[in-house]
Amino acid sequence: MQNDIANQTLQILEIIGTLAFGASGLIAAARKKLDMVGVILLVLVTAFGGGTLRDILLDRAPLFWIQNEIWIWLLAGAAILIQFFVKARNIELNARAIDWPDAIGLGVFAALGTQIALDMGHSALIASIMGVITAAFGGLIRDVLVAEIPGLVNDHQLYASLAFVGGLFIWLLQYLGLDSNYSALAGALTIIAARILAMKLGWKLPSWRN
Amino acid sequence: MQNDIANQTLQILEIIGTLAFGASGLIAAARKKLDMVGVILLVLVTAFGGGTLRDILLDRAPLFWIQNEIWIWLLAGAAILIQFFVKARNIELNARAIDWPDAIGLGVFAALGTQIALDMGHSALIASIMGVITAAFGGLIRDVLVAEIPGLVNDHQLYASLAFVGGLFIWLLQYLGLDSNYSALAGALTIIAARILAMKLGWKLPSWRN
Amino acid sequence: MQNDIANQTLQILEIIGTLAFGASGLIAAARKKLDMVGVILLVLVTAFGGGTLRDILLDRAPLFWIQNEIWIWLLAGAAILIQFFVKARNIELNARAIDWPDAIGLGVFAALGTQIALDMGHSALIASIMGVITAAFGGLIRDVLVAEIPGLVNDHQLYASLAFVGGLFIWLLQYLGLDSNYSALAGALTIIAARILAMKLGWKLPSWRN
Repeated sequence: MQNDIANQTLQILEIIGTLAFGASGLIAAARKKLDMVGVILLVLVTAFGGGTLRDILLDRAPLFWIQNEIWIWLLAGAAILIQFFVKARNIELNARAIDWPDAIGLGVFAALGTQIALDMGHSALIASIMGVITAAFGGLIRDVLVAEIPGLVNDHQLYASLAFVGGLFIWLLQYLGLDSNYSALAGALTIIAARILAMKLGWKLPSWRN
Repeated sequence: MQNDIANQTLQILEIIGTLAFGASGLIAAARKKLDMVGVILLVLVTAFGGGTLRDILLDRAPLFWIQNEIWIWLLAGAAILIQFFVKARNIELNARAIDWPDAIGLGVFAALGTQIALDMGHSALIASIMGVITAAFGGLIRDVLVAEIPGLVNDHQLYASLAFVGGLFIWLLQYLGLDSNYSALAGALTIIAARILAMKLGWKLPSWRN
Repeated sequence: MQNDIANQTLQILEIIGTLAFGASGLIAAARKKLDMVGVILLVLVTAFGGGTLRDILLDRAPLFWIQNEIWIWLLAGAAILIQFFVKARNIELNARAIDWPDAIGLGVFAALGTQIALDMGHSALIASIMGVITAAFGGLIRDVLVAEIPGLVNDHQLYASLAFVGGLFIWLLQYLGLDSNYSALAGALTIIAARILAMKLGWKLPSWRN
């Protein structure tokens, strides 16, 4: 019973994250003026890439999208519909349009990846790394496929740090006795808020540069 | 007995597709004037990349090339021989030389990947996606390794569409009662013909662009 | 008992190779002036990339770094410390600084990958290919992530050849009756020596080019 609620929370996170990253792939594809099939490919790869690599590394089978193919239909259908809508209305997408779905996907997938690994009995470190992989890999392939390689090295670093620290935060909350449903949700919201704040306030990481 | 014939058909498709994509990797390597080892690497990665990713995603083990290492020897040997021959004769390979092996590999590997997933009990959608992955991933790594990234986004879209629609066609034929040997063969031939036609007639996909 | 020693030898190789490739990732990150998190990411990916792909292809689980997370802490900690040290001392790293850790990592990981596959009962060919993958894949992702794609095609060819021939050499020594501990060590040292010699003497592979 308790377990059912936990599984439900994880499933809801999976759905929100999939939709958010799917949207970010759609915006990236629209901005690059890809063909219709390229748009669908980019949406699917961005939405499912991170979870797929996580499941391969953790030796979990079958994969989420193989078991729940309804999400492939939904994302591909939405990609086609929104594409026609954007074209018909002549909507221009600026570079910031991707920021919100990306922040939501980051927080939700980081929390999901962390929680899945914790539930399998992995340590705080491995679980947080799985959060980073779930949250960052889809966007990384998205950027490679639209040939924005330099972006990898810079933008993805803050993602990775936020996802990692958020994962440790989730582990800490559970270690302190909080129910895993609430801690995963709290972690997701914290990461999203931190990402939005980082963008608004221009947070940077310490570097070699000076 | 029936099952033996089906397995034989799949094996023949595996062999034809491996040879065709191996040839396309060889031509790409020759055009980029790679060193001898680079040629062998590109041939092997192009020939085995798609099937390897498919088997990892479907949790199938052991991998085709690990179980049938004779094909590694054959492809590497052929790569070395043909390399000397092309150099001795001073043959110039133009950009179109890759089109035929690529079309054949596309059709055969799409049919193979679809059929393998259908045989495992997966749905038409998942099976067609496995066809796309089997057919497209080897060529995608090939293009990344020779640093032709922009090509990813454009050329590979028509490949993916043809492989996907071809996969649905194979599923439909079987759903209508056709034997799986004939439907896989029919699917492979249809995809190859469509690819060749698309190149000759300059078919394009609908896009955001106008 | 004999088996324990063999496992110890493999573990020592794993540790030396992990440290060497971690150092090469650190140097690459420092030269590109990455942020602190980027440095840690590059160190971890370079150190664990090859072994991870090898284990996925051979269907081995759990992964080395998931089972021995102490190495993640050590590498990340060292990356942070060395980073501050290099910055404080204003040390300039030239392009050759990466050569030694890269050569050591190459030899050790090639021997390790080969020996692991031989121990699983795979043939000389498959084992040597696993050596190549273990030795080359980490550095390959490292180069893609710092956007040095052209390097892939040229530099990595000599790596691959040395790792492959070294793998066959290890297999041969064992076939001739040498204990697997000594043959793996001898193979590692031979590959390192050959790599250093190749750099000093400017060895090249035969190519299409003339």
